[in-house]
Amino acid sequence: MKALVYYDTKNAKVEEISEPRLTAGTIKVKVEYAGICGTDLHEYMHRSFVTEDKMILGHEFTGEVVEVGANVTRFKLGDRVAVEPIWGCGECAACKKGNYNTCPDMKSYGIHENGGFAEYVVVKEENVYLLPEGLSYELAALVEPTAVVLHAVRNSEFRVGDKVAIFGAGPIGLLLSETLRAAGASKIFVVEVNEKRRELAKQLGADIVIDPSQEDAVKVIQEMTNGGVDVAYDAAGIEVTFNNALECTKPNGEFMVVSVFSKPISYHPATQLISEKKITASLGYNFIFSEVIDLLAKGSINAEPVITNRISLEDIVEQGFEKLINDKNECKILVRP
Amino acid sequence: MKALVYYDTKNAKVEEISEPRLTAGTIKVKVEYAGICGTDLHEYMHRSFVTEDKMILGHEFTGEVVEVGANVTRFKLGDRVAVEPIWGCGECAACKKGNYNTCPDMKSYGIHENGGFAEYVVVKEENVYLLPEGLSYELAALVEPTAVVLHAVRNSEFRVGDKVAIFGAGPIGLLLSETLRAAGASKIFVVEVNEKRRELAKQLGADIVIDPSQEDAVKVIQEMTNGGVDVAYDAAGIEVTFNNALECTKPNGEFMVVSVFSKPISYHPATQLISEKKITASLGYNFIFSEVIDLLAKGSINAEPVITNRISLEDIVEQGFEKLINDKNECKILVRP
Ligand SMILES: [Zn+2]
Ligand SMILES: [Zn+2]
Ligand SMILES: [Zn+2]
Ligand SMILES: [Zn+2]
Repeated sequence: MKALVYYDTKNAKVEEISEPRLTAGTIKVKVEYAGICGTDLHEYMHRSFVTEDKMILGHEFTGEVVEVGANVTRFKLGDRVAVEPIWGCGECAACKKGNYNTCPDMKSYGIHENGGFAEYVVVKEENVYLLPEGLSYELAALVEPTAVVLHAVRNSEFRVGDKVAIFGAGPIGLLLSETLRAAGASKIFVVEVNEKRRELAKQLGADIVIDPSQEDAVKVIQEMTNGGVDVAYDAAGIEVTFNNALECTKPNGEFMVVSVFSKPISYHPATQLISEKKITASLGYNFIFSEVIDLLAKGSINAEPVITNRISLEDIVEQGFEKLINDKNECKILVRP
Repeated sequence: MKALVYYDTKNAKVEEISEPRLTAGTIKVKVEYAGICGTDLHEYMHRSFVTEDKMILGHEFTGEVVEVGANVTRFKLGDRVAVEPIWGCGECAACKKGNYNTCPDMKSYGIHENGGFAEYVVVKEENVYLLPEGLSYELAALVEPTAVVLHAVRNSEFRVGDKVAIFGAGPIGLLLSETLRAAGASKIFVVEVNEKRRELAKQLGADIVIDPSQEDAVKVIQEMTNGGVDVAYDAAGIEVTFNNALECTKPNGEFMVVSVFSKPISYHPATQLISEKKITASLGYNFIFSEVIDLLAKGSINAEPVITNRISLEDIVEQGFEKLINDKNECKILVRP
């Protein structure tokens, strides 16, 4: 079969390799779509999490069940499924409380075991979710990033009616905007320098988009909210968005980090202290795939505009990774093996 | 009367000035004890909050009612009282929700209006609390800093049985330790470089004291708690304590800032993200003086060991401010006018 094999920084190739084999309790999925995530790009640019010599990347994938191993009871050939890529050790304090997303030994398809940038992938039955009739494979490829966002919103103090601000309108920022709309936010600000992404934000829940290269985002938000939003989310992950998001949060409000920062930042705890703001953080998700699938299937969350391109697996490096790195007009690119 | 008049950085003198006059709704208190706080020292070292040309510092004071203005109904001559020094504008969003401690226009005796380092002080009736028979004036002088700490504990996610760590054993760190003991913490770690303060911490609730110049505090705490404390408090306010306190917090736990940082710090949001820790902050207090008075009066919180010295008002600059700045063996010094 064809698969994207990752060897090292800037060294990943689509190659012909042998199909993966089933073991007891696993399922073989013919991949229909796999989304390219910031994590894939990050690994492509600077090897960080992959420790194996060779790894098939891709953790946002969906497809059809084509083979089931011994003891598999819940799935049969032809089932349309999405795959939850992560799992915990099951033994640590976090895992025992159900927080496998914060397990120090958390594992993921596409990082620790072969992932979805391939024609076929073998996954554990417990990581597989059945798709309802109405949900397309394209939207099903968005279940994973939407789960990241739904977990963040549910873990924040956001309540229906709240005013919110989102810094950064990449896939996570855009899905946040759309999910917060679905959750009943009364006013959604999205701060983003790229014009195309601001346009997408308007299609994905944003009430007010702000270009921080043209306007003082903090000032605009504070004026329009009479002192700050209830919850601000940083989906950009740099020092300036961290500090701006913190600043435009109301007194006693919450600022949530949902982005992966690549280096330390400088901030002044006194800015947080004088108005008792909280800085929280959300990573991944746990036990939320079914709910995400339902929300996408019934159209409560309309995630479709996030998809800016569909490409074939052969083109993933040039038309996928390189394109996303160099062209901020692209957002979520789906790969079809 | 004698009072400590603050003019500017390093310029504060005990002088003979005229007694303050009553207006309607105010009460004249003969000060019995006034505690020296980090805020006083900070203002003495680097003028920051006082904007008037002359100001009598001191916001932690207690004494006897010697005169009451028109319309004062709840107090009479001879009443023993503690004074809550802060108040909000009453008009802003924070004030309207009762959070006068985060009012952008918050005011305080000893900073915006004359405070307690004087023989007499005039205060608004609404800021005055009657002391029960059993509570000494010395302990009553600790009501204000204990209120800071009780507010922090109540605003944190701390629950009886939790394990906690406190970085810094100045007056706030020590009162935190004792208050967390009173609140039923199952294990209290106090991290402090000064030996005398570590000794005090042992008298004030700490189960385990750590000298970070001799031991790796984060490692010790993580090992003894199997992965971190439920809540860590930074009562020191420097970059290293911020990062250590964050690090020794368990996954999904809380790190609370209760100290005033004088400059920005560097931290890596990823350290917070990978285990979804919260960074919260607590400033001052609201509507909690009565409860603090009760807890001190019935001995639930035994704050007395925090007091390391009693001095007369004449000696406040040399034996109070300068001593506290240069001698970390001192903790809370009470001034008796
Ligand atoms: Zn992803
Ligand atoms: Zn685990
Ligand atoms: Zn104080
Ligand atoms: Zn106010």
